[in-house]
Amino acid sequence: MPPQNMDRAVLIAARTVLLRDARATMAAIAEEAGMGVAGLYRRYANKQTLLQAVAADNYRRYVAFAEAALSDTDDPWHAFTDFLRHVLDEGLPRLTVALRGEVTFDQRLSDLDKLAVNTTNRLLRAARGSGALRPEVTRADITVLLEQLGRIDVGDDVRSAALRRRYLTLVCDGLRADSATRRLPGPPPHEAELLGRWA
Amino acid sequence: MPPQNMDRAVLIAARTVLLRDARATMAAIAEEAGMGVAGLYRRYANKQTLLQAVAADNYRRYVAFAEAALSDTDDPWHAFTDFLRHVLDEGLPRLTVALRGEVTFDQRLSDLDKLAVNTTNRLLRAARGSGALRPEVTRADITVLLEQLGRIDVGDDVRSAALRRRYLTLVCDGLRADSATRRLPGPPPHEAELLGRWA
Repeated sequence: MPPQNMDRAVLIAARTVLLRDARATMAAIAEEAGMGVAGLYRRYANKQTLLQAVAADNYRRYVAFAEAALSDTDDPWHAFTDFLRHVLDEGLPRLTVALRGEVTFDQRLSDLDKLAVNTTNRLLRAARGSGALRPEVTRADITVLLEQLGRIDVGDDVRSAALRRRYLTLVCDGLRADSATRRLPGPPPHEAELLGRWA
Repeated sequence: MPPQNMDRAVLIAARTVLLRDARATMAAIAEEAGMGVAGLYRRYANKQTLLQAVAADNYRRYVAFAEAALSDTDDPWHAFTDFLRHVLDEGLPRLTVALRGEVTFDQRLSDLDKLAVNTTNRLLRAARGSGALRPEVTRADITVLLEQLGRIDVGDDVRSAALRRRYLTLVCDGLRADSATRRLPGPPPHEAELLGRWA
């Protein structure tokens, strides 16, 4: 396997194991990747370095889905809901929740976080501009809703994914400007409330 | 304090403490209730008996809100959404989640669970019959949605409650038949999937 493919395989193995247990050992991750623990430590000097690589990869996947949605200018609402579905199907919010409290934010992760926020805001502006999205919905709302949907877990991966799609459909219908019977009450989460959960 | 008021005070103290930490000790609960541990053990022979009493009380509160909503036959949709708001404001789904895995289901709790299911089904039939509720929404959907909303927690009780109301408003708009852009995909959770989470 070429080195970059091996890196990818390690990240995928780490995602899989960390989604089951965010406190998994390097040994468990090495086993899932089909390599020795020593080999894993040659790539990542310690578990924190690996966790940061996994978190960075999670951000990059998120931004890639958001960028793809932004390129669909014909139907911003469809692009937006498709983006939410991809992000959920890939388990990105679940991994974010799992890594909370485990991963230490370094400069690279802070930069990726800013990029993810900016790209989501661009996507929301497009959906809002098309008139389809409730105007008061913010990026912080989307963060909370994705995390809540990501937490749905009935013990079986296939069924859990199907249920996440069921409730995403309901939430997306609730996000539409046409559906609003009233303005959403209270302010959305403040940035500090969202960031506080990383502490 | 008359004995029944003291019982109520103990249950309220237990709710408060268990919502913070479902594995709280009898000592922590006694302290919150402003009584000695020995006094608490005179009322509840062991922690499991107290947990079962708290769970039973939680079911009874839920059913009382549902019955109140059923008595409003003028506007079944308004009664239904008000019911959801009361249940969330009172923290009933949060306590259910907190007690999961901690409380052992005895016959009394099984009977109360059946009563809660039946009452919710009657409420859903009324909301469906009025044409306001998406016809495919089941009691299991409501269980999942209430638990998801109940889990919203930004570390501050007042802000968390305000955010739960914000997203409940969005979810209620999504639950309306008028809002449906398509049928909700996939089946709702099976009973075994919901019950399995109590194991």
